[in-house]
Amino acid sequence: MSTSGIDLRAFVRDIPDFPQPGIAFKDITPLLLDPRATDAAVRRLARFAERLDIEFVVAAEARGFILGGALARQLGAGFVPARKPGKLPHETVSAEYTLEYGINALEVHADALAGGHRVLIHDDLLATGGTASALCDLVTRLGAEVVACAFLVELSYLGGRARLAPNRVFSLIPYEA
Amino acid sequence: MSTSGIDLRAFVRDIPDFPQPGIAFKDITPLLLDPRATDAAVRRLARFAERLDIEFVVAAEARGFILGGALARQLGAGFVPARKPGKLPHETVSAEYTLEYGINALEVHADALAGGHRVLIHDDLLATGGTASALCDLVTRLGAEVVACAFLVELSYLGGRARLAPNRVFSLIPYEA
Repeated sequence: MSTSGIDLRAFVRDIPDFPQPGIAFKDITPLLLDPRATDAAVRRLARFAERLDIEFVVAAEARGFILGGALARQLGAGFVPARKPGKLPHETVSAEYTLEYGINALEVHADALAGGHRVLIHDDLLATGGTASALCDLVTRLGAEVVACAFLVELSYLGGRARLAPNRVFSLIPYEA
Repeated sequence: MSTSGIDLRAFVRDIPDFPQPGIAFKDITPLLLDPRATDAAVRRLARFAERLDIEFVVAAEARGFILGGALARQLGAGFVPARKPGKLPHETVSAEYTLEYGINALEVHADALAGGHRVLIHDDLLATGGTASALCDLVTRLGAEVVACAFLVELSYLGGRARLAPNRVFSLIPYEA
């Protein structure tokens, strides 16, 4: 099946006032329901990263796991899940971050990465960059290298890309307003 | 790369007394770190399901998303995320379930599935079957058909397979005790 021309933006729907009044939520579940659209998304994310010698993809629960796992597989890379506090069973490192709607923390296993590992950060959505910035912190604290950050959706007007600088940032579906 | 002979069980580690004293947690993160093992797991799960005409894979957050998304892609199927209450932004249906360590609920979007859709249930772990049973409930309440349930790890001694009967159940790494 050819997915080269598919318009991924058509598979993202706006949900007004979720999770709070005034916030328009970008719902990617229609994209996930469509195997051609999902396949195109994974291939396009992988194409961006394929010359970067990525060894591990790090993604945040829960939505980041869906394409993150498939992207790691497409790249022939390992997958490192970043989870909310208390969810990972072994020794962890933790980083706090500020969300659009609150404060939280993410953890990865302390033995998941080591010095010199080349890492791609993935999440479904780049908003203010808090989650991705925490993921970058976790990676560098384990001695590994953040090579780039790849997102499905980017809310460009929230400035996440600037917050992640000087890391390379790539997104498939940017929204300017 | 050939992954046909790889011993997946060697990539699961026991974490004693997590999340509670007396429970030995099956940690699949070493498997996820290894692209050959993850690839073998996805291929073997897909091989089980490939003659079942699966149209959608339904999986529970968070760990079920990691291989679930990759499995859906391997099968050319859509992916339906089942999430904790309040996480999905559109109209949902909800099912409560009893976990090994508590009570919870899962939701799917009400427009994710419809009559006649052929569904594969996936989770990383089959324990007592509470989570998977709730997923089955959600699928049938939307008029779709649970064709089979596929797990990475199965704690056979907890009886989850019997609870899911008469659904077909498949697991890659069963533990008898």
